[in-house]
Amino acid sequence: MPDTMKAVVKTKPKLGAELQRKPIPTYPPDWVLVKVRATSICGTDVHIYKWDDWSDKRIGAKNLPQTLGHEVAGDVVEVGAHCKRIKVDDYISAETHIYNPGDLNAMLGQLHIGDHMQILGVDCDGAFAEYFAVPESVCWVNDKSIPPEIATIQEPLGNATYTVLGEDSDVAGKTMVIIGDGPIALFAVGVARVCGLAKIFIIGKYDFNMNIAKKLGADHLLYANKDDVNRIQYIRDHTGGSGADIVLEMAGSQQALDEGFQVLRKGGRFSAFGVSADPKPAIDYNNGIVFKGAQIHGISGRRMFDTWYRNRNLLASGRLDISPVITHMFKLEDYKAGFDEMMTRPRHSAKCVLFPSSEEFEAAKKRRGVK
Amino acid sequence: MPDTMKAVVKTKPKLGAELQRKPIPTYPPDWVLVKVRATSICGTDVHIYKWDDWSDKRIGAKNLPQTLGHEVAGDVVEVGAHCKRIKVDDYISAETHIYNPGDLNAMLGQLHIGDHMQILGVDCDGAFAEYFAVPESVCWVNDKSIPPEIATIQEPLGNATYTVLGEDSDVAGKTMVIIGDGPIALFAVGVARVCGLAKIFIIGKYDFNMNIAKKLGADHLLYANKDDVNRIQYIRDHTGGSGADIVLEMAGSQQALDEGFQVLRKGGRFSAFGVSADPKPAIDYNNGIVFKGAQIHGISGRRMFDTWYRNRNLLASGRLDISPVITHMFKLEDYKAGFDEMMTRPRHSAKCVLFPSSEEFEAAKKRRGVK
Amino acid sequence: MPDTMKAVVKTKPKLGAELQRKPIPTYPPDWVLVKVRATSICGTDVHIYKWDDWSDKRIGAKNLPQTLGHEVAGDVVEVGAHCKRIKVDDYISAETHIYNPGDLNAMLGQLHIGDHMQILGVDCDGAFAEYFAVPESVCWVNDKSIPPEIATIQEPLGNATYTVLGEDSDVAGKTMVIIGDGPIALFAVGVARVCGLAKIFIIGKYDFNMNIAKKLGADHLLYANKDDVNRIQYIRDHTGGSGADIVLEMAGSQQALDEGFQVLRKGGRFSAFGVSADPKPAIDYNNGIVFKGAQIHGISGRRMFDTWYRNRNLLASGRLDISPVITHMFKLEDYKAGFDEMMTRPRHSAKCVLFPSSEEFEAAKKRRGVK
Amino acid sequence: MPDTMKAVVKTKPKLGAELQRKPIPTYPPDWVLVKVRATSICGTDVHIYKWDDWSDKRIGAKNLPQTLGHEVAGDVVEVGAHCKRIKVDDYISAETHIYNPGDLNAMLGQLHIGDHMQILGVDCDGAFAEYFAVPESVCWVNDKSIPPEIATIQEPLGNATYTVLGEDSDVAGKTMVIIGDGPIALFAVGVARVCGLAKIFIIGKYDFNMNIAKKLGADHLLYANKDDVNRIQYIRDHTGGSGADIVLEMAGSQQALDEGFQVLRKGGRFSAFGVSADPKPAIDYNNGIVFKGAQIHGISGRRMFDTWYRNRNLLASGRLDISPVITHMFKLEDYKAGFDEMMTRPRHSAKCVLFPSSEEFEAAKKRRGVK
Repeated sequence: MPDTMKAVVKTKPKLGAELQRKPIPTYPPDWVLVKVRATSICGTDVHIYKWDDWSDKRIGAKNLPQTLGHEVAGDVVEVGAHCKRIKVDDYISAETHIYNPGDLNAMLGQLHIGDHMQILGVDCDGAFAEYFAVPESVCWVNDKSIPPEIATIQEPLGNATYTVLGEDSDVAGKTMVIIGDGPIALFAVGVARVCGLAKIFIIGKYDFNMNIAKKLGADHLLYANKDDVNRIQYIRDHTGGSGADIVLEMAGSQQALDEGFQVLRKGGRFSAFGVSADPKPAIDYNNGIVFKGAQIHGISGRRMFDTWYRNRNLLASGRLDISPVITHMFKLEDYKAGFDEMMTRPRHSAKCVLFPSSEEFEAAKKRRGVK
Repeated sequence: MPDTMKAVVKTKPKLGAELQRKPIPTYPPDWVLVKVRATSICGTDVHIYKWDDWSDKRIGAKNLPQTLGHEVAGDVVEVGAHCKRIKVDDYISAETHIYNPGDLNAMLGQLHIGDHMQILGVDCDGAFAEYFAVPESVCWVNDKSIPPEIATIQEPLGNATYTVLGEDSDVAGKTMVIIGDGPIALFAVGVARVCGLAKIFIIGKYDFNMNIAKKLGADHLLYANKDDVNRIQYIRDHTGGSGADIVLEMAGSQQALDEGFQVLRKGGRFSAFGVSADPKPAIDYNNGIVFKGAQIHGISGRRMFDTWYRNRNLLASGRLDISPVITHMFKLEDYKAGFDEMMTRPRHSAKCVLFPSSEEFEAAKKRRGVK
Repeated sequence: MPDTMKAVVKTKPKLGAELQRKPIPTYPPDWVLVKVRATSICGTDVHIYKWDDWSDKRIGAKNLPQTLGHEVAGDVVEVGAHCKRIKVDDYISAETHIYNPGDLNAMLGQLHIGDHMQILGVDCDGAFAEYFAVPESVCWVNDKSIPPEIATIQEPLGNATYTVLGEDSDVAGKTMVIIGDGPIALFAVGVARVCGLAKIFIIGKYDFNMNIAKKLGADHLLYANKDDVNRIQYIRDHTGGSGADIVLEMAGSQQALDEGFQVLRKGGRFSAFGVSADPKPAIDYNNGIVFKGAQIHGISGRRMFDTWYRNRNLLASGRLDISPVITHMFKLEDYKAGFDEMMTRPRHSAKCVLFPSSEEFEAAKKRRGVK
Repeated sequence: MPDTMKAVVKTKPKLGAELQRKPIPTYPPDWVLVKVRATSICGTDVHIYKWDDWSDKRIGAKNLPQTLGHEVAGDVVEVGAHCKRIKVDDYISAETHIYNPGDLNAMLGQLHIGDHMQILGVDCDGAFAEYFAVPESVCWVNDKSIPPEIATIQEPLGNATYTVLGEDSDVAGKTMVIIGDGPIALFAVGVARVCGLAKIFIIGKYDFNMNIAKKLGADHLLYANKDDVNRIQYIRDHTGGSGADIVLEMAGSQQALDEGFQVLRKGGRFSAFGVSADPKPAIDYNNGIVFKGAQIHGISGRRMFDTWYRNRNLLASGRLDISPVITHMFKLEDYKAGFDEMMTRPRHSAKCVLFPSSEEFEAAKKRRGVK
């Protein structure tokens, strides 16, 4: 074990981050130390990288410097003295919601929502580094057959799976509209296809993303930013006039909310995942919810660890192939290129994966047939 | 059987209704004819009586005259040739949602919501009469131990029970906030108390109603129109800091929506029953739904006939006593007095029951100890 | 419309059935008349054909003659005067559970189980004929893209789908053991694969059937009648030591029950579909159910019409291809060949479809590439 | 803090136990030390006290001496260095299922069932002592308004509540048959009554217990050991001919299993809690489960901590009063009298509570009006 490591660190409350050498993290006795094999860039990381208002309020300049990143896969190299479950050499990913066991929600089994939760890479140092430390309680042991570039994106994949399955996981043979074409919406298409949704509509904006959606199994591509097709009518026409059984709102815009409740059939389920740009958007409460007998499921994080379990099974089976969503891979040192990709609009990237080690980077390129 | 009957008929598109003699209704072979024992006034009847914009749009002047009323209990006196289930002398109440069996929702067992539904007393003649006709498909056979003045209010009671129980009926041992103090909110208090809610808060406005809520089992009375207590803080303080497991929105105001999502605990269930005065109210989507992992259940009508079955059992057991909500009883001829009570503000009435027959009226007064 | 039609009729309480000319059926005003495009042989038909003890008790010699058959697809040619939903030219299949609307279960939405139910082809004339009559209430409108030889087997497919999905339809990403290799078990494999089961084990007996299971997506084939592999240990080894999330018992033998509860993980779900040869088999109640915290779902028929809806969606999507289970097709006149196939052991047939019309037979052969 | 304490210790593999002075327990850093205020005798303790075959196999002579007892309430006096949730002076009860966080079931939120679980007082020293140590992970903080003699019996009350509510907690307005009249069945009556069961039948044996059942809210008392009433017919007659919505099997006899499945309505729920005397009883699989479309829920322990949460709410509300089930209270030193009561047949005791401190004993007697 070396004494220091490379890490991508947010040092100042302004755009950017620095590659630094830092000491290997120390940690409490119920945490573990992990050697990072792959880590990936989330929208949250981009917020912090840009240091927007949210970052300033949520993290605060006084808490810098802090290592970025929370999507990760790696090998456990040390375990604290009071760990009970995780062992050295376990190949893990981390759930980023570090729950407080005293919260009522935690006591009731809803570990992913709680009044006193901490987020990896937001409330403490993250995983854009050669090593990171994390509580044993949020470690998930990966199936060895899942390569690191896939294992690292299980965290956002989990968002997608939870949004698709909702609280009841009752999706088989149903119809679904997915609104949004960001990486998590694209994952959702793949999950929906594998889990027996019989008809999948996606409403997105960018050809680049829509093509990935098509590869992952979307049946009908509708553009939110084009008026050639009446989206509401189109979806009703293709669902026997009733609308879709399930709608996933993964865009967060007023238009998404308006259209989402319109294309939902009576008695259908609406997964609310997108963070609304307007914190108090206008909602068609009477017709969209009350008279429609709609079921709305607020989706935050992913179920711990029910969602992880299902995803491990699906990925290990080979039935779920989300690799088309990975559009870029870089060495950790080249994190700036990754962030640049993530900040460019119109988007021509979905998910960027970073590798601290050249060997892992080369192996991943080989697996994906990339030179 | 006489040739004609008394009926309270909406004749003109303006305030009021007329007591008329009309022929006994004729009906199709899968309908039944019912002798009314008791009928009661719903808020919908008041809208029609007043002939407000909703009535004008929903019913339309061209469809008058039409008999009012849909809350009812009576004895079946004739059944059509193709009826299979209901028999002469059955003591029934009517579900008012006359479903279309071809609607997808009907095929899926969600009889109470459908794209081509008719409402008794809105889309056809109603029950403020000595006799009324109704499809067999929406008849519910009452337990004979339930008196007519209670049996007639099972329809709005069903709204309350469905709102309390939501889609999953998972309420035992939980905490609940009921927002609103109209008759259905008051019923909800009674149902909640009998069904094992361990702590029941009501947020209302009128002492008259709040006293009924107290009788029916509310533990904490909070006033929406007074600022002596911080309602949000009060509820959190009395729920271990987390908020209530379940919130019933039965008021339809912006304040109700705002406070409702604030007092709901993370991962809790929010029953959306109130019709919002503002058709597109602003909702705290991010904090109230998404990050909170809330479950919202839109409540329209009541489950057919799951809700009726549970209510029959509860009423027949004597455990559920909703009689305090009945504040006025009149002979059918005195319907104007009933509507006057319903239109007076501040309200000093909850539910008005009308009796076409003097014998039934006298028997009901005797049962209730009224002179 | 002709006056008479071909029909396969059970005439005597002994092995066999006769091809007869019979009058076109008459029917009540809420029934419809259907021209049969395809019909298929169920195990129940074989019981009746053989006239075993069950048939003698269930149907009785005094009720003969009776037309056989209940799996069917056809075009509606007439509708009774009081039909509301089905129209002439609708392409339908029939749910065989003719529910009594007065049963409590029917009132509660559980149309498929009731105290006073009738079965098509068992309690009344069936569908092995050019025409058959059926209550509108059990007609299901097929998607026109589904060919008749598939549409007719939706009834047993519905058994399979209901067994796979259970009461909650929570299957995505889980592991499943299917015990049995009859046609419905084979359908179950196909449904499970399409609905996101991540690992599917089948325990069967016959190579012929197991090969079909493999085609439909089974991951692990285990033989109930060979001892080369310890089945219990094998399944545990391939499920992380815990056993499978879901077990489908579709064989009805003591061995199936014993092994089924052993390979179920704690807290898992066990679908009980197989009819036990021993009416009161010994069950490992303490370890298999109580201490295991198992959920057992008794499966009878299929949900009306939730199961039909999902299957229609899945079949129309092309995702679910159950055609490998159809191993034989005959003209209706050649019904004896079909029954002979069904009665031969070891089985080298799964599902036999019969066609009253030569045109339909030829079209089906062409679709399936059969000479 | 003293150095030693009184404890009731199983020392030899034969009938009985000894009152000893032992050192105050030491414990790992994620455990807590609790001063016992009340503890109560469970059937499991009686098995160990008698040292029957089960005890010999489950615990084994080589693991003696061991302190008995696992139902308990007390005050935390010390917390280990790595505890996060429980604080000194917390008033707690202990869940007895010490889960292994690495079990798949634990990862999926089913903490109460797991492949590597330990039981307090069975796999380690228990709570019949002045002090006991327990992992923080299974501590439940009591509401201070619940007296110790009630708080200690929350563990078996939790069994009852879980059996009543099943996996879905859908009980409001339904009918229920409870088979058995032991203490947990009696608790179940009380819970059922408070949670809105509209009609409660109990099938028991002993007048002493049946009288308690009546006090707790049973509507119909049926004797399993008398033939004056046809129990099956009686229950059907009182449930509209269909049978009960929910059956709780809490007796474990063949008769209970036979009758339980007969009185369950089609589509009903059967909670399997009783441990069957015959490990592989004969079950009417076809008619009782498959054709009936029954849902069977195996009940082991109680949900952690959903069941505890609901019970805390119900007890603190005063709505649930289970005190009639406490029939005897003793000082800890008089444990033999308690065990003698528990071993006497026919039973004239339900639950015995023991108090290590005279002050607590006197306070409890005063609360219960006992001299």
